Amino acid sequence: MPKQVDHRERRETIARALWRVVEQRGVAHLTMREVAQEAGISHGALQHYFASRGAMLSFAMDFAAEQTSLRVGRGLQELGDRPHPRDVLRLMLTETLPLHADARATSRMSAAYVLEALHDEDVHARARDGLLQGRALVEQLIRQAIADGHIPPDRDPATETNLLLALTGFTPLIELDVIDTRDVLTAVDQYLDRLFTGEGQQ
Amino acid sequence: MPKQVDHRERRETIARALWRVVEQRGVAHLTMREVAQEAGISHGALQHYFASRGAMLSFAMDFAAEQTSLRVGRGLQELGDRPHPRDVLRLMLTETLPLHADARATSRMSAAYVLEALHDEDVHARARDGLLQGRALVEQLIRQAIADGHIPPDRDPATETNLLLALTGFTPLIELDVIDTRDVLTAVDQYLDRLFTGEGQQ
Repeated sequence: MPKQVDHRERRETIARALWRVVEQRGVAHLTMREVAQEAGISHGALQHYFASRGAMLSFAMDFAAEQTSLRVGRGLQELGDRPHPRDVLRLMLTETLPLHADARATSRMSAAYVLEALHDEDVHARARDGLLQGRALVEQLIRQAIADGHIPPDRDPATETNLLLALTGFTPLIELDVIDTRDVLTAVDQYLDRLFTGEGQQ
Repeated sequence: MPKQVDHRERRETIARALWRVVEQRGVAHLTMREVAQEAGISHGALQHYFASRGAMLSFAMDFAAEQTSLRVGRGLQELGDRPHPRDVLRLMLTETLPLHADARATSRMSAAYVLEALHDEDVHARARDGLLQGRALVEQLIRQAIADGHIPPDRDPATETNLLLALTGFTPLIELDVIDTRDVLTAVDQYLDRLFTGEGQQ
């Protein structure tokens, strides 16, 4: 089905153009007109692919989440057959932080999406669903790590999950050059070391 | 000097109008024209107070930071004469999270400001300075708490400061209803309990 492939490719091209607008010009310029211009297509052609600005944003955000998952997936392959849960959580956390160009693009897209969600119910619902899915995945990993004796059994899985998710708050601190990459990774490792203190107790 | 007072009052009225635009309509609507309209003044009158959009945003952000400081100050008074450093840090952290209407307004203003900083060097420099000042204050509190035996001496003050600041990452999770207020406070308290494990060792 070459036509569907083309369709998908074209939507991805548009999503990447949208990211560039967010990254280079800012969310104030996130209009269908500017995205069409950046993608090198007409406003009418863009409307053929996305009925509304919200639909375009949601696709761009889904695509960003997909790209982040792919990066995490590649990182997991490098961790080998039976990766340690600490390394898996570290990878998931650090790939959502703007520590390199690809992650920066998806991270800025996410920040713009959250602000958009405050004024658009559909975007809010979709953003929430995405985060809840991510949250469930992290909680599952933490529960398993507790069961396997890597994390002490007195830790509450839900609370530990919430704290790990909150550490994405490094994002604005990195973007504004308040904390440098090395110090962010030091803090993340320190945090994970204190979470994974159940080693060898099995 | 009633004239200066008026000037200040007028600027604050404009800053509050700007917050409302950010909160109710979103950062895409953050133009001088829409802020003037929300504040009930002419575009020309707004330009009399702020030479540029960046200057207007910076004042609104300074004002937001000031309001947050005032809230923290009021909270400190309630903590009594010699507040425990754990309570001080808890207050500072929770007042930056969108847990009530005032904090929500200043928090959304901050999020918009960070996105703006990515495309505006002046805004970036000012936002960075503000965060570095806040960071220095938190680090000073943590160093003192270590010196006073409230936090174990093997904790690195810089890393602990960075981790505490990163916990502002609860913000999007609260805004998108991923984690409710009660669970956020549970996680914050759990985190602080584990930081302040030096009690009584003095």
